[in-house]
Amino acid sequence: MRDFKWTDAEKKVARRVFDAALQTEYAALLERLKGLAAEARTLDDIWNIHDFLAGQREAIDDKYDFRYSQLIIVFGRLCRENRIADQDLAGLSGDKIDAIRRIASL
Amino acid sequence: MRDFKWTDAEKKVARRVFDAALQTEYAALLERLKGLAAEARTLDDIWNIHDFLAGQREAIDDKYDFRYSQLIIVFGRLCRENRIADQDLAGLSGDKIDAIRRIASL
Repeated sequence: MRDFKWTDAEKKVARRVFDAALQTEYAALLERLKGLAAEARTLDDIWNIHDFLAGQREAIDDKYDFRYSQLIIVFGRLCRENRIADQDLAGLSGDKIDAIRRIASL
Repeated sequence: MRDFKWTDAEKKVARRVFDAALQTEYAALLERLKGLAAEARTLDDIWNIHDFLAGQREAIDDKYDFRYSQLIIVFGRLCRENRIADQDLAGLSGDKIDAIRRIASL
């Protein structure tokens, strides 16, 4: 992985794309949580929700790492999961977009 | 703490009292969880629910220990928290009830 330089304008694009993807992801998580809580009946149901949230927390903490050294990988993964689209990357340099697409296609 | 002997009839009383207290406790927890989930808006709200459930799980696992060697302490604590009442203990021997009340008054 090259050590990309991020311009101020690219950093703003990156932050916007990152935040939008995270917001979509946690909005879905929130809906899932509300559904699970509404359906819960037993103590095991409650602890299953706890376990579910623990797993989600680890996954989201791992996936959403806003360090410039990690962003290409982060965005590549989000592209692969269809959480961000090609047009979301407009404003980033061509070499960054290429690197993101390469990771997305892995 | 004496090593009490539990008759079969007392074991049935103990199980009934224990299960009823646990059910009341987790029904309240379930209501609380549904309320927190319904009000949650942000990712921090979600993780706060996770932390809340983690604490409740530890507290409930610690409190509800159905081993005959622990039941006097368990019931004493539940009495102190007004989760079980004196009349719930009917059917247990006098020395057990006395021991439970002593712990409840600590």
